[in-house]
Amino acid sequence: MQEVLPILVFQTDFTYKEGAIASMYGVVRSVSRDVEIITATHELPQYDIWSASYRLMQYVRFWPKGTVFVSVVDPGVGTARKACCALTEDGYYIVTPDNGSLTHVLHQHGIACVREIDESVNRLKTTEGTSVFHGRDLFGYCAARLASGVIRYEEVGREYPVGEIVRLPIADAEVKENEACGIIEIDDPNFGNAWTNIPVRAMLENGFSYGEDVHILLKRGDEVLLDQNVRFDRTFGDVQKGDVILYNNELMNVALAVSQGSFMNAYHCGFGSDHTIVIRKAES
Amino acid sequence: MQEVLPILVFQTDFTYKEGAIASMYGVVRSVSRDVEIITATHELPQYDIWSASYRLMQYVRFWPKGTVFVSVVDPGVGTARKACCALTEDGYYIVTPDNGSLTHVLHQHGIACVREIDESVNRLKTTEGTSVFHGRDLFGYCAARLASGVIRYEEVGREYPVGEIVRLPIADAEVKENEACGIIEIDDPNFGNAWTNIPVRAMLENGFSYGEDVHILLKRGDEVLLDQNVRFDRTFGDVQKGDVILYNNELMNVALAVSQGSFMNAYHCGFGSDHTIVIRKAES
Amino acid sequence: MQEVLPILVFQTDFTYKEGAIASMYGVVRSVSRDVEIITATHELPQYDIWSASYRLMQYVRFWPKGTVFVSVVDPGVGTARKACCALTEDGYYIVTPDNGSLTHVLHQHGIACVREIDESVNRLKTTEGTSVFHGRDLFGYCAARLASGVIRYEEVGREYPVGEIVRLPIADAEVKENEACGIIEIDDPNFGNAWTNIPVRAMLENGFSYGEDVHILLKRGDEVLLDQNVRFDRTFGDVQKGDVILYNNELMNVALAVSQGSFMNAYHCGFGSDHTIVIRKAES
Repeated sequence: MQEVLPILVFQTDFTYKEGAIASMYGVVRSVSRDVEIITATHELPQYDIWSASYRLMQYVRFWPKGTVFVSVVDPGVGTARKACCALTEDGYYIVTPDNGSLTHVLHQHGIACVREIDESVNRLKTTEGTSVFHGRDLFGYCAARLASGVIRYEEVGREYPVGEIVRLPIADAEVKENEACGIIEIDDPNFGNAWTNIPVRAMLENGFSYGEDVHILLKRGDEVLLDQNVRFDRTFGDVQKGDVILYNNELMNVALAVSQGSFMNAYHCGFGSDHTIVIRKAES
Repeated sequence: MQEVLPILVFQTDFTYKEGAIASMYGVVRSVSRDVEIITATHELPQYDIWSASYRLMQYVRFWPKGTVFVSVVDPGVGTARKACCALTEDGYYIVTPDNGSLTHVLHQHGIACVREIDESVNRLKTTEGTSVFHGRDLFGYCAARLASGVIRYEEVGREYPVGEIVRLPIADAEVKENEACGIIEIDDPNFGNAWTNIPVRAMLENGFSYGEDVHILLKRGDEVLLDQNVRFDRTFGDVQKGDVILYNNELMNVALAVSQGSFMNAYHCGFGSDHTIVIRKAES
Repeated sequence: MQEVLPILVFQTDFTYKEGAIASMYGVVRSVSRDVEIITATHELPQYDIWSASYRLMQYVRFWPKGTVFVSVVDPGVGTARKACCALTEDGYYIVTPDNGSLTHVLHQHGIACVREIDESVNRLKTTEGTSVFHGRDLFGYCAARLASGVIRYEEVGREYPVGEIVRLPIADAEVKENEACGIIEIDDPNFGNAWTNIPVRAMLENGFSYGEDVHILLKRGDEVLLDQNVRFDRTFGDVQKGDVILYNNELMNVALAVSQGSFMNAYHCGFGSDHTIVIRKAES
C-alpha cells in the first residue's frame, strides 16, 4: 500500500513563476494518488546541468533506498539527447535527460544500469503534439508510473551501456603532506560560500589541523582571487564576522566562507574547473 | 478514506517571505488531517488577476477530476467583490475571489455552476475581526471544508448565474490561409518566452509547416517590437543559441523564444491585448 | 497510525537555491515514511532571528495542537548556543537553536518546558564530522524522531529552566484614551506593509473608530519618516490606490500600508525597537 511506494523527489530549473510545476505534479497525481511528491528544488540555475548533477550527489544519499529522483535541467529538450532512467549501485532511481546531469552521481555512487525511456509507452498521450515540456510529458509521467508500480524498471525502455552516459569533465582533488590541490566545485548560493572538491579527511590525514592558519592561493585561470592566510576551522562562529574561513562543509569537503557574509561576492569567485585552489600549511 | 478525498491545489501571490502560507495551510490542517495540500505556486505576479486566470487554464486540466483549486490574487480583499466557488463543466472546483480570475477557465473549460461563499458558515470564526486575509480565513478554510467532506458543494453558499461571473476582456486568435493574427497572451517568465493565443493546429491546417521560415510582425500598440523572418519549428534546439524561434508551446499554441535567452527582455515585450502579432508565410 | 502522528512544519533561511532542503527532508524520510512534512517557508531573511521568532508567533496558533515546528535561522551554528525543543503552554513543540527565535512565542503562548537536544542520541550519526548543517543533522533529525514517535519528548534531552531561554528585547504597546504608542515590529515583505505591535482592540476601546482619520508620527530614532493624517480603516480597498492607510492586519494589530503599493519602500521604513510610532486622533 501507500507506505511501500517509493517517494518521488523533483529538482528542476522551472521556478514557480508560472504553471509548469502545477502541470507536472498534476500529471503525477493523474497517474497515482498514492505516490508521495517532494520538492527538492525548482530553482536550480537555468540551463546549468553541472549544478543539477552536483545537487543530486549532495542529497540523494540521505533518502531511503528506492527513492525515485526526477531531475530536469534540459536546454536540449526535444532534440536527440536521450531521456533516461538510471539505477545507482546503491539503489536509487534517477529520471533525467542524459545530458551530463548524472556526472557526479556516476562518479560517487556508481550506476548499475541505465535505460532509455520508451516514448511510445511512457509518454503522456494527450500532449503528443508538443516537444518542449518533457518535465511534464515524459520525465514526470514516466517517473510516476515507475514509482507507483504501473511499470517495472525493465519496462522503462531499452537498457544501454553505462559507459555511454554523457559525462561532464570532473576532476579529483590531490592531497599530499601539507598541501592540498583542487577546484571550487560549486557554490553555496544562499550563503555565498565556495565549496571545493577537497575532502577534509584527506587534509587531516596529511598534516593539517583545525584551529591553525593555512595559506590559500585561489585562481581563476591565471587571475589571483585570494592569496593569503586564513583560519582552518570547524564552523563560521569560530572567526569574527567578515573574516574568511576555510571550514569543513556539510559534504565533508573544505569550503571558503566569509563569516556572515558572501565569499563568492567579496572575492568575485565562480566555480568550475578553471577555479583552482592550492592550500598549504601557513608559515608559523 | 484518504484516497477518495479530492486534492487541494493552491496558487497565490503571497510569496514565502513571511508567515501567510504557513497560516493558511495550518487552517487547512485544523479542518482536516487527511486532505492533500499541493502548492501550485505562491509567486504569481502581485495583483495580477490576468496571470492567475491564465495559469489556472494552463494546469487545471492535468489534475484528476474533482480536484479543488484555491486561487487568491485579491487586490480587492475586504471590499464588495464576491468570494465564490465555481464548478467547471469538466468537474473541477475553483475557490477564488470573483474578480476576473475565472476568465480563462470559463472560456476554455466552461463553468457549470458558481456559488457565493456564505461567510456566516464557511469563514474561520476565530479571525472575524480582520478583513485582509481571506486566503487564510475564507478561501483556504472553505476549500478545506469542501475537499474534506465537511460540507457538500451545495453548502458553500447560494448559487448565482454563471453570466454574472466577472470576466476580463479576452480575444480569440484568427487564422486563415497563410496568415495568423493574435496577441501575446502571457509570458513564460522563467525562460522569457512570449506565448500567443494562436493554436498551432490552426496554423498547420492553414498552410504553415514546421521547418519553414515565417514573417513576424509584433507590435505594442503602434510600436513595432519585431518585424523579421524567424524559424517556425518544434523546439528550441532546432536553432542556434541566441536566434529567435516560433515554436509550439506546451499548451499547443505558438510562442516566441530566443534559444537559451529571454525573448521578453531582448525585445522589450510585454503581454496583453495591446501586444498584437501577425504571422505570415515568409517569401521564399 | 499515520493520522495520529503530529505534523512537521519547517521554516529556515536556506532558500531553494541548492540541495540543503532536499538533504534535510531526506533525513526526515529516512527516519519515518509516515510523518507529514510541511514547508512553512525557507525564505526567511538571512540570519534574521527576530523574523524567525515573529513568524512562529504569526502562524503556530493556526495548526493542530501537537504540531512539531522546526525553525532554523542559525548564524551561530556549531558554536556554544544550545539546540533545544520547547513545548509551549498551549501544546506545540518547537525545535530550534536557542538563540532568540523563541522570543515571541514565549511572550504570547508561554513555554511550559524546554529541553536541550542530546546530541549523543538525537544527532544523525553518519555526519558527525561536520558542524555546519544542524538543520539536517540535528534539528530535522531530532524533530522527525519526536514527531514519528521514535522518541518521547522526555528523550529529547535534559530539561533546563524556561527562564534561561535566550530572549531578544521585546516591548509591549501602550494605548490610552485617544493615543497609542508602539513600534514597527515587523514588515509584510510581500506587500510592503509595516506591522505595529499595537492591538486594534485596544485602540477601538480607547476612542478610535474605523473610518476616521488619525495622526501618525513615525520615527526611526529621531528621524521622522511619517508625520501626517491617514485613514484608519478595515482594509486597503477603502482608500484610493497610492494612499496610506492604517488598517487592522491579520494578527489584529494595526499596520501601515500604501494601497496597491509598498509602504516600506515609499517611506524608507524598517522594523525593530528603534522604529517608534505614535497614533493620535486627528483634529476634526
